[in-house]
Amino acid sequence: MFVLVNLKAYPCDPVAVATAARDVAEESGARIAVSPQAAHLPAVAGTGVETWAQHVSPVGHGSHTGSTLAEAVADAGAVGTLLNHSENRLKLADVDGSLDAADRADLETVVCGNNPDQAAAAAALGPDAVAVEPPELIGGDDSVATADPSIVEDSAAAVAAVNDDVDLFCGAGVSTGEDVAAAAELGASGVLLASGVAKAEDPRAVLRDLVSGI
Amino acid sequence: MFVLVNLKAYPCDPVAVATAARDVAEESGARIAVSPQAAHLPAVAGTGVETWAQHVSPVGHGSHTGSTLAEAVADAGAVGTLLNHSENRLKLADVDGSLDAADRADLETVVCGNNPDQAAAAAALGPDAVAVEPPELIGGDDSVATADPSIVEDSAAAVAAVNDDVDLFCGAGVSTGEDVAAAAELGASGVLLASGVAKAEDPRAVLRDLVSGI
Amino acid sequence: MFVLVNLKAYPCDPVAVATAARDVAEESGARIAVSPQAAHLPAVAGTGVETWAQHVSPVGHGSHTGSTLAEAVADAGAVGTLLNHSENRLKLADVDGSLDAADRADLETVVCGNNPDQAAAAAALGPDAVAVEPPELIGGDDSVATADPSIVEDSAAAVAAVNDDVDLFCGAGVSTGEDVAAAAELGASGVLLASGVAKAEDPRAVLRDLVSGI
Amino acid sequence: MFVLVNLKAYPCDPVAVATAARDVAEESGARIAVSPQAAHLPAVAGTGVETWAQHVSPVGHGSHTGSTLAEAVADAGAVGTLLNHSENRLKLADVDGSLDAADRADLETVVCGNNPDQAAAAAALGPDAVAVEPPELIGGDDSVATADPSIVEDSAAAVAAVNDDVDLFCGAGVSTGEDVAAAAELGASGVLLASGVAKAEDPRAVLRDLVSGI
Repeated sequence: MFVLVNLKAYPCDPVAVATAARDVAEESGARIAVSPQAAHLPAVAGTGVETWAQHVSPVGHGSHTGSTLAEAVADAGAVGTLLNHSENRLKLADVDGSLDAADRADLETVVCGNNPDQAAAAAALGPDAVAVEPPELIGGDDSVATADPSIVEDSAAAVAAVNDDVDLFCGAGVSTGEDVAAAAELGASGVLLASGVAKAEDPRAVLRDLVSGI
Repeated sequence: MFVLVNLKAYPCDPVAVATAARDVAEESGARIAVSPQAAHLPAVAGTGVETWAQHVSPVGHGSHTGSTLAEAVADAGAVGTLLNHSENRLKLADVDGSLDAADRADLETVVCGNNPDQAAAAAALGPDAVAVEPPELIGGDDSVATADPSIVEDSAAAVAAVNDDVDLFCGAGVSTGEDVAAAAELGASGVLLASGVAKAEDPRAVLRDLVSGI
Repeated sequence: MFVLVNLKAYPCDPVAVATAARDVAEESGARIAVSPQAAHLPAVAGTGVETWAQHVSPVGHGSHTGSTLAEAVADAGAVGTLLNHSENRLKLADVDGSLDAADRADLETVVCGNNPDQAAAAAALGPDAVAVEPPELIGGDDSVATADPSIVEDSAAAVAAVNDDVDLFCGAGVSTGEDVAAAAELGASGVLLASGVAKAEDPRAVLRDLVSGI
Repeated sequence: MFVLVNLKAYPCDPVAVATAARDVAEESGARIAVSPQAAHLPAVAGTGVETWAQHVSPVGHGSHTGSTLAEAVADAGAVGTLLNHSENRLKLADVDGSLDAADRADLETVVCGNNPDQAAAAAALGPDAVAVEPPELIGGDDSVATADPSIVEDSAAAVAAVNDDVDLFCGAGVSTGEDVAAAAELGASGVLLASGVAKAEDPRAVLRDLVSGI
């Protein structure tokens, strides 16, 4: 299981969370990555934790003021990127273009979607993984893997039918080791989480619990 | 073969094109539809031609000022809608939402894409058809079916692999009966065209030539 | 006072509301317009009521699939258009471009904004009027003219400071003749309303009450 | 005169340009800032040059994956931000929201626009400066200050009429000390430039020439 911690625009200390994630990854052997604001990528990557961008733009080098260039986030230490998060929905053609951009910069990719149909559509574009996150569960206390297990199973099946090289992740409400174990049983090979770690008083303790079920 | 004439925002007389299309459809037995500006839907549908919208918004009834409500275009006589045209790219989640909206209003759907990957992604969302239109050929003199036949064949294969209930259309540069015949041979069951008819001095003659190859 | 009834995407009968508006305008001498979905413009204009579009795109004739062409809504009977409604926010450059498009098609224009700063910015682009509508009051029971009178007064002052040829309208929560009278006293020369009329069991009675305070 | 060097998504070495800009600013006393990709902000700021963001999102701390948080770019060393560049046009309401965000993070602001009307609209929102850049001149060899001097003068007048606390900058085609001097004579107090420096073989020499006219 891959645990990807999305720091969004939360008022947390990104280096403190990154340091905790690095330590828990080392002590447990679990794969944990942290995805901060683009401007915080160098500081987060500097801790040694696996570092992801939250987005890259569907562009290459050129006249693209205000874009998030894949090559620039890679320079800054990112090795992967989220795309099409429910808080940052992209045009279908731009998901395709951003995947090409990520590919040129050797970034791993996870494309988000709301439901099995969108997960299948995303899988057709050839990312490394697709994450299904029902918007109504994001930021809440109920994990998708327990509140709506069929959406995870159906997404896993839909993705496999389109392209079985694409992994399925799930997100929305994941906050405990039990949630992670439930996600794995439903066919997910990764989880996205955010506030459960980023807003925790003790991120290290939360991360230890999360990976305990792996 | 289905011939769908997209009037875009061209300075043509939509009723004159619609009348020509209705007559040629009747005399040839070919299926021809016309897709005007939303404000012209009632006048176009009033000719008796099969009438399509150029877009519907991913919304239902409610507080959506400036949207294009699927139920309103259906009221006005549309029986189908284009979605995600290269001049009107939608977010992946909104292609999904607009397909749901079209379904509630009993509209047929054609989702556009640039390439086989995007065609496959669109097919995963369950439209009636997917149209592949390489942007560099739109509005030009070279037909996709002759200039870039592999993109049509590859799209047909990619769509069939995802969902073989979804038809493949092609567009971009289609303007003659030969182009239509070439498209059919490559696996397309419909063509999108626009300027070739809308800007013609004699749309009726162009349409007669187009359907001659069917 | 100008009373502009925005039908949004509500499940109302646009012709019934338009007929009521036409009748109340005639009997009272008040200026009342109705703004339906683009596909309903011909039917609404056919009643004889003053008819407005909810939006026009920042384009002229050309390759703009899915756009709302100013010339097309004018053809269909519209004499004015809303722009930048809070449910359909436009880029600053596109407000400018849509105003140019409306001008070419001889459409009157009302640009919406949330607050006095945005109202002043909109006024700098030279529309016929600017409408201030605090988003938190839209669709509610409290009228902006009573719940937040200073925003109307401040907007009137801000607009006048930038361009005193531009009228100020207000919207959000307007539903009675008292609200209209209060808006007029604060410096507004028009009101936008929507659900209060569109969802009324008896739109004619609501409109009669609305214009009673003029 | 303020010289703001926008590195866009160019394939340049941002630290090399920043070091040159820092040195030329020190030796000449001119104010020069560099605006890199968000992911490069820490490295650029680390040189000691005045550092600007290319964009900030209209959000505060919270659930905004993929946003560019003003507080994060400030953390990373930015002291100002461009907004609404022609390559990154924002909704009118979002220009307003991004200015609020920049203000909370103590960032200086320059809002871009195409023409005098848009410059006036931007000025009404209260940024520190407005930059007028005719899109047809961006990236070209003709400077706005020589190719289209009236647009600079008219913008200066339009901005002053709305809010005379707001400075006027100009951009598009500025590449020499003469261009800078011409811009200053037309009423500009700053210039935006990009490819002229970022793509130069010797950025230091170009910057020395640029500030020679100040």
